[in-house]
Amino acid sequence: MDNYENVLKLFLDAVQTTLHSTETGDSSEIPIGISNRHLHLSQIDLDELFGAGYQMTKIKDLSQPGQYACKETVTICGPGGAIEKVRILGPVRGKTQVEILAGDCFKLGMVSPSRLSGDLQGTPGITIVGPKGTVRTSEGLIVAQRHIHMTPQDAQRLGVTDGQIVSIQIDGPRGGTYSNVAVRATDTSALECHVDTEEANAMNLNSLSKIKIIK
Amino acid sequence: MDNYENVLKLFLDAVQTTLHSTETGDSSEIPIGISNRHLHLSQIDLDELFGAGYQMTKIKDLSQPGQYACKETVTICGPGGAIEKVRILGPVRGKTQVEILAGDCFKLGMVSPSRLSGDLQGTPGITIVGPKGTVRTSEGLIVAQRHIHMTPQDAQRLGVTDGQIVSIQIDGPRGGTYSNVAVRATDTSALECHVDTEEANAMNLNSLSKIKIIK
Repeated sequence: MDNYENVLKLFLDAVQTTLHSTETGDSSEIPIGISNRHLHLSQIDLDELFGAGYQMTKIKDLSQPGQYACKETVTICGPGGAIEKVRILGPVRGKTQVEILAGDCFKLGMVSPSRLSGDLQGTPGITIVGPKGTVRTSEGLIVAQRHIHMTPQDAQRLGVTDGQIVSIQIDGPRGGTYSNVAVRATDTSALECHVDTEEANAMNLNSLSKIKIIK
Repeated sequence: MDNYENVLKLFLDAVQTTLHSTETGDSSEIPIGISNRHLHLSQIDLDELFGAGYQMTKIKDLSQPGQYACKETVTICGPGGAIEKVRILGPVRGKTQVEILAGDCFKLGMVSPSRLSGDLQGTPGITIVGPKGTVRTSEGLIVAQRHIHMTPQDAQRLGVTDGQIVSIQIDGPRGGTYSNVAVRATDTSALECHVDTEEANAMNLNSLSKIKIIK
């Protein structure tokens, strides 16, 4: 019986070790977050587009703490055309920022630089149409630069620092590497590498994909 | 005067060398061709979609000798939705082949493998709607695998062989590498690396871009 119990204990230990290893996986692997075109609104622009005092309706929390997708969408318009049903992300921010796909530039008839969120100086403005009004921004149209959110603890573990530019390795039959990926380390971040839908499709990434940093 | 003529000759030689070097550039650089979704039709399917004996209208020669874009477009339909105005490329082929973007799979509600042109076994079929009829193919829906067309002479110069799988290097602020790029060397090819619009947008490639092979 002792022998039986010992074997059982060894078996359970082995199962637990395997489960733990499966849960944690390779600690250098980073989950992927895929963004479609979207926008962040200032309170002033939200009031203009949806009416004074309008409150957005959260429909889904996003992976970054405090960030969420709203029920509300708008139309964005450039000299070459319009794109409807562009999702608003909350909460409101200090400045309105519209993040489009590189392919959207052709439809809008605009050229937009690849920039990190918040780095808006010198970027083009765009017309945003909501149910109660229209806003013409003076700047804030960007194609988001690929970036990796993480805490300072993650950064230390991964051997990188806030602001560092790295490359990422994507495995699989449609894989490769993306260079010029910015590390963004703050205390309120969740570990996730953000690419847009075109970048994801080009490398066959989906919401279960993981990538590795190459320095 | 002899001296003047000698100086002039040296000057003209220098200009000519510079011009020649600018024209030819780096001989390891390969031009990019960017494909949007499109299809190739068999004669039987062309007759079914556009009427018996229909002749397609060429609107533009493509870079590969003998290949051209046609005026005609069709609608392709999957269980999740339809995509209109999909361009037909000529001339007709032995088998109908529909080449979509990875992002189109979501709209069509279908899963399509990344395959080289002509490698259609086991790929899904799709419904194609033309002005005179509808065809439901049994196979032939693919996302094109990245590939490089070249002559055997180009291949020798670049140190690769027909069928070899290489990676390509893309420079610039949104650059990186794509792996699993197939070399296709035939006597009737023009040197060009083919990617689709999502792959081009993800790396900021345009019709003037050039890439290099990494082995």
